[in-house]
Amino acid sequence: MKNKKNENFSEWFTEIIQDAELCDLRSEIKGMVVNMPWAVMTMKKMYAIYEAELERRGHRPALFPALIPESLLAKESEHVKGFVPNVLWVTHGGDKELEEKYALRPTSETIMYKMYALWIQGLKDLPLKIYQSCQVWRYETSATRPFLRGREFWWIEAHDAFATKEEAEAQVREDMEMTELIMHQQFGIPFIFFRRPEWDKFPGAEDTFAADCLMPDGKIVQQPSTHLLGQHFSKPFNIQYQDETGKQQYVWQTCYGPAIWRIYASIIAQGDDKGLVLPFSLAPVQVAIVPIFKKENEMVVKDKTHKIKQLLLQGNFRMEVDFSGDTPGAKFYKWELKGVPIRVEIGEKEAKTGMITLARRDTGTKEQVEESKLLTRINELQEIIRKSLINKADEYFQTKFYVAGTKEELKEKLKLGGFVRIPFCSRDMDGKECADYVKAETVADIRGTKFDSDEKPKLGEVCIHCGKPATVYVYAGRQY
Amino acid sequence: MKNKKNENFSEWFTEIIQDAELCDLRSEIKGMVVNMPWAVMTMKKMYAIYEAELERRGHRPALFPALIPESLLAKESEHVKGFVPNVLWVTHGGDKELEEKYALRPTSETIMYKMYALWIQGLKDLPLKIYQSCQVWRYETSATRPFLRGREFWWIEAHDAFATKEEAEAQVREDMEMTELIMHQQFGIPFIFFRRPEWDKFPGAEDTFAADCLMPDGKIVQQPSTHLLGQHFSKPFNIQYQDETGKQQYVWQTCYGPAIWRIYASIIAQGDDKGLVLPFSLAPVQVAIVPIFKKENEMVVKDKTHKIKQLLLQGNFRMEVDFSGDTPGAKFYKWELKGVPIRVEIGEKEAKTGMITLARRDTGTKEQVEESKLLTRINELQEIIRKSLINKADEYFQTKFYVAGTKEELKEKLKLGGFVRIPFCSRDMDGKECADYVKAETVADIRGTKFDSDEKPKLGEVCIHCGKPATVYVYAGRQY
Repeated sequence: MKNKKNENFSEWFTEIIQDAELCDLRSEIKGMVVNMPWAVMTMKKMYAIYEAELERRGHRPALFPALIPESLLAKESEHVKGFVPNVLWVTHGGDKELEEKYALRPTSETIMYKMYALWIQGLKDLPLKIYQSCQVWRYETSATRPFLRGREFWWIEAHDAFATKEEAEAQVREDMEMTELIMHQQFGIPFIFFRRPEWDKFPGAEDTFAADCLMPDGKIVQQPSTHLLGQHFSKPFNIQYQDETGKQQYVWQTCYGPAIWRIYASIIAQGDDKGLVLPFSLAPVQVAIVPIFKKENEMVVKDKTHKIKQLLLQGNFRMEVDFSGDTPGAKFYKWELKGVPIRVEIGEKEAKTGMITLARRDTGTKEQVEESKLLTRINELQEIIRKSLINKADEYFQTKFYVAGTKEELKEKLKLGGFVRIPFCSRDMDGKECADYVKAETVADIRGTKFDSDEKPKLGEVCIHCGKPATVYVYAGRQY
Repeated sequence: MKNKKNENFSEWFTEIIQDAELCDLRSEIKGMVVNMPWAVMTMKKMYAIYEAELERRGHRPALFPALIPESLLAKESEHVKGFVPNVLWVTHGGDKELEEKYALRPTSETIMYKMYALWIQGLKDLPLKIYQSCQVWRYETSATRPFLRGREFWWIEAHDAFATKEEAEAQVREDMEMTELIMHQQFGIPFIFFRRPEWDKFPGAEDTFAADCLMPDGKIVQQPSTHLLGQHFSKPFNIQYQDETGKQQYVWQTCYGPAIWRIYASIIAQGDDKGLVLPFSLAPVQVAIVPIFKKENEMVVKDKTHKIKQLLLQGNFRMEVDFSGDTPGAKFYKWELKGVPIRVEIGEKEAKTGMITLARRDTGTKEQVEESKLLTRINELQEIIRKSLINKADEYFQTKFYVAGTKEELKEKLKLGGFVRIPFCSRDMDGKECADYVKAETVADIRGTKFDSDEKPKLGEVCIHCGKPATVYVYAGRQY
């Protein structure tokens, strides 16, 4: 690769998605890309892992129509205000104008909750926990970017309804737990949950908690968010259950939206100057076997290669043997670019001694393993690589938290990337004007208050913009 | 269930999709339904089975934009003629009219082949075998029906490109093999491949081969079809490769489209008057454990139930223990309605003797199995049930082939349902007029000629309509 990740991340990102063949930008449909096999194979694994975890926690899959009538979308006033400017509209069928136009779903609350009102009658129908794996469309008017911002993207949306507010709040925490288990522990992407300020909530939510991650250039990318919807939707959609006393009660709701397509951007960003570095569990090919031979030792190397392939088949790994006509160097380059976690090299020495060479993609280190211990060693390496990737990502992430007390300090710290904690007047709508000024002056957004932290400004600390006494610490940063 | 499948299949079908909670028709979006968890869980298994088989045969997954610019859709003239009347059009983004309107994909040839022209340069790029699992939209103007005909449905489309016509023809046969392996051997649905007459080909195809199945009322439902596209698309889309001599050559193409949503309709149709009868591999719950107890033996039955559950967990079955407060009868009814292949009953007798009762959904038979042999027996039953379902379906299917020599005979035979072989003037466009007359008089469609059969009309046999010498035997039948 020509670009260096740490010198110019943005160009590096553009280069890697082309070189590793992750998507093709030449569809000529603005803001919509063709997702190529290598990316789709990984996203399929990501979907499977997320879906299994959702189902383990009582969610069931459903599929709702992709088209939402305009009148239905308009039922919750904040929601419609938030989404309508970005809706793609279906207006005609064949050569006939439709009686009512349809929104291509930007998200599915309205169509799902219309059905929830029919499905939920009594306590026996609660909790209702449904998810849908699908794509959504948003008519983005700002610049789009593959896997980060598109007019079409792929996600999961989980929508849950409960009898009590406490259960809904517990679900928000469960959504955060799932994010930790999957995005951090399995995909190796660290994050921090912020409670978004009032002016930056999901349209229609009572409270929004969003996982912010960092790109290698220190810019923030928002990953899964979970929303406490409260009764904001159950009232306009009339989702009620009969309680023990026979009284009708509105349900309490939450929704959670891991955008697989976008999380994949954070996975790409874990790469290095040789290409992708994929977690073992997500790699389309986990082990690449590269035979290295010349005319004179072709037979002995190929024989050993076939034997090793048979051996590895027992391990149930996703595996490819590279018998292409390329040079060993070109083969190494290719599998490194593709991010394959383990390369098995088989040359004349390996064939004769039975000591096989393993190369790790994440560290670049090589080791010799006795043939009989190959399977065991690769199984060990799975876990070692997983932990090593997490540690590396965590080490970087943990250094990116800064503190500033004045706007000048904020500007200085923002140059370092990451999150800068500042004293602020308010996380309620009162604070919005200050946030707008901060944004105008620094290009930084106020991400909100740290979730589950009791940090508070000390007496005498003042809002970084208006100078009024600070009531909260909020975190600022530049985002994608 | 109120309706009897063999007396009134159509009402039975409507009733079962509601009673077993397969889809909800109350979305109020014309022709689009909400697919409920029980159906989606099975369709997910169907997708996984089909995708694994496609990948085993060298296909790789990709995801293409759901929106296709009008000009792109129009590139192949037959194709655009066939699809444009049924296109849903996206014309606006936010409150702005788009410069060019987009078709919500009715199928993806055009957007995919535009990319194929960029991806295919030389022999090293061939064959190219890509599939996409997605939904498509068609503005149906005739009556829609859940899982059979909708304005939105879920399918897989596989699009392959080859250097030679022979390879493309071999792919058509491979598509048929996959259909046999999956739809017949795994899902238990028999079919017959017909070569469609010229007037009933896929728009833009050189040749269409479609798998026709039967519903229990004898009406035909078309399932996966595979199309030899020849060079019909590679020419307008300019998909060329450089051959060994340095000359540019157009590729040969095929496409194959298993509509998971529609195949699910055929799976529903395998049910009986108690509800669904699902194949073991597709059932969301494969084994339902039903404890049967009264106050006085509750402890001993529950203990045994927990023990059996632990035992079955080792078998990796999808399993549910029904501890609901319903009566045993209500529990049996529920799991039968849902089509769960095996029910394990545990009452006081089972708890004390260790002889467990197994009930098969497909035959309704019960057997006693020693606890220590339970896992082994359920594993055996998987295969026994699979074969039994296939046999039952095949027995019915094989009786539904008839022969007619005159229009009067045809009308009589059509009353029996199934396929009626008739002598016909031509499968080329010359025959279309006769087909139209036959349709007008009998409501039967000409499905085409039997694939891979050398049956030919005898000297003297004449076309059932025009009376000219018959050149082919075609099959007629009424379809969904």
